[in-house]
Amino acid sequence: MKALVYRGPGRKAWEDVPDPELVDPTDAIVRITAATICGTDLHILKGDVPEVEPGRILGHEGVGVVEQVGAAVTEIKPGDRVLVSCISACGRCSYCRTGMYGQCLGGGGWVLGHTVDGTHAEYVRVPFADTSTYLLPDGVTDTAAVMLSDILPTAFEVGVLAGKVQPGQTVVIVGAGPIGLAAIETARFYSPGHVVAVDLAEARLDAAKQFGADVTVNAADDVERVVFELTGGLGADLAIEAVGVPETFELCARLIRPGGRVANVGVHGKPATLHLEKLWIRNVTITTGLVDTVTTPTLLTMLAGGRLDADRFATHRFALDEMEAAYDVFERAAETGALKVVLTR
Amino acid sequence: MKALVYRGPGRKAWEDVPDPELVDPTDAIVRITAATICGTDLHILKGDVPEVEPGRILGHEGVGVVEQVGAAVTEIKPGDRVLVSCISACGRCSYCRTGMYGQCLGGGGWVLGHTVDGTHAEYVRVPFADTSTYLLPDGVTDTAAVMLSDILPTAFEVGVLAGKVQPGQTVVIVGAGPIGLAAIETARFYSPGHVVAVDLAEARLDAAKQFGADVTVNAADDVERVVFELTGGLGADLAIEAVGVPETFELCARLIRPGGRVANVGVHGKPATLHLEKLWIRNVTITTGLVDTVTTPTLLTMLAGGRLDADRFATHRFALDEMEAAYDVFERAAETGALKVVLTR
Repeated sequence: MKALVYRGPGRKAWEDVPDPELVDPTDAIVRITAATICGTDLHILKGDVPEVEPGRILGHEGVGVVEQVGAAVTEIKPGDRVLVSCISACGRCSYCRTGMYGQCLGGGGWVLGHTVDGTHAEYVRVPFADTSTYLLPDGVTDTAAVMLSDILPTAFEVGVLAGKVQPGQTVVIVGAGPIGLAAIETARFYSPGHVVAVDLAEARLDAAKQFGADVTVNAADDVERVVFELTGGLGADLAIEAVGVPETFELCARLIRPGGRVANVGVHGKPATLHLEKLWIRNVTITTGLVDTVTTPTLLTMLAGGRLDADRFATHRFALDEMEAAYDVFERAAETGALKVVLTR
Repeated sequence: MKALVYRGPGRKAWEDVPDPELVDPTDAIVRITAATICGTDLHILKGDVPEVEPGRILGHEGVGVVEQVGAAVTEIKPGDRVLVSCISACGRCSYCRTGMYGQCLGGGGWVLGHTVDGTHAEYVRVPFADTSTYLLPDGVTDTAAVMLSDILPTAFEVGVLAGKVQPGQTVVIVGAGPIGLAAIETARFYSPGHVVAVDLAEARLDAAKQFGADVTVNAADDVERVVFELTGGLGADLAIEAVGVPETFELCARLIRPGGRVANVGVHGKPATLHLEKLWIRNVTITTGLVDTVTTPTLLTMLAGGRLDADRFATHRFALDEMEAAYDVFERAAETGALKVVLTR
């Protein structure tokens, strides 16, 4: 088959590789019909994720049709159309048994396109298939469904749910890339009073408005002034960090009211400064997290019911064998305006 | 009357001052019968809390007998024995109306011995008396009750409740001073599996054992190794920071498991480093807070029912007019072994 293979920092190729085979009885082989690229894939390509070894097939987002299942698989069968979750869950360890699949101790967690071969390929071996895939209802398109592999549950669980959005509250979302936009969209499930989007790119602020932000602020402007004016001088109830650099995290910590929350969704490569000399007295809560994907069924219900518009993340579409062109467009998102690039066949 | 007056950094005096008078109709005048000194009082004396002006009477912990009440006070009357809470609550602002008295916007919060005259005096004017004092049951001694002005609700609310201690969990308490010991004692309400106390002083680790820690580790030893061995390599469910320096906060963040919590109780004067490059993926929750004192009735019930031993915090006892000697013993706690010094009359 063809697959996108990581060849070390800065190098990748869409090339011929052996077809995946069942290894464990809990595996399934899925024929990929839709995939998308994540900012994390670009981090890997830059060499920022050293545990990814050269030769690894990238990608942790995909939709496809089950080709084969191992002897222990009972919940899906060949021919089923499934969502492949970015998180694999053994289903049996102490973390999986409390729904914290992202922290799976049994060989799961974020493994696809990381420590095992991923979804940027014609076929993928999905470990722990029963507890790591979801059957897709007929009315849900591949393009919409693939947004549930990672970005929608990540933004919803790690941003909105960890941040405890409540009706009427003011939520600031710092970073209006795909994750930030998914946070805007899913925050609105809880009827916030204001959703304020912050980004440096005007195009992304426009997208934020389309996704439901009622206030947008360019990060180069005085974000604190805007948020404090909007909240009677108190600060936001919640700030969701969806960038992954110290400056944006520290901005979030300055934007919240006493008793407010910062939900960090961004993937960070460096430490941030935590101003405890100011925050110790302010009853703040700061959360971090890798997605568990426990909300995938909820999000599928919302999608099937027309309550969630996931298609609109897909700004650029490619055939699966145009993988390298898709990476190129996604890498140059600042120029191309790409939110999510979707590859289908 | 006599009172302990702050005279600027490094200077204080037990001296004659005018008796306090009712100012607002919600005030009460309380004749102090027991007081105790807090680490925060020492910070003020060092000049670390610049909003405290010279001439201010210090102290935010006290028990006494109501002498006079303003026209609007309905819940206490002259002759009543009351606990004076370290937090004054207007009872009417948006924060008070959700029980967040520590963040009171109506002129309360931590004001006693801070922005208004405090309890280290023969008499104190208590603002918002109805919602800032608690009637004391007969069986509760002044010495035990005064531990409920600050340390017990602070450790319980900001450490144990914010940190969500659950049965069977491993709780590490970094810092075994009065607040840390109060956290040990109140964590045990929730039947944790292990309570690990960490301190540099062996005498405080001995106290931690008496208060209910089952494991003690000198902070100079390999605390991480001990905690990880105790928890099957995962880390603690909760670390309570009860010191207030960056190093101990950062230690707490290293000691917790994926999905674990850090509850910061310490009063910090400097920023800490938040290692988001490690923590972003670990589903951690970090909380900070000033006490609200909403649990004071619960703690009084526990005290009255013999379920809470508060007397044992009082290692040194003085008459009220020995205030300067009491400060001296408390300031030299490393030598004197003082936990809480109690002044009574």
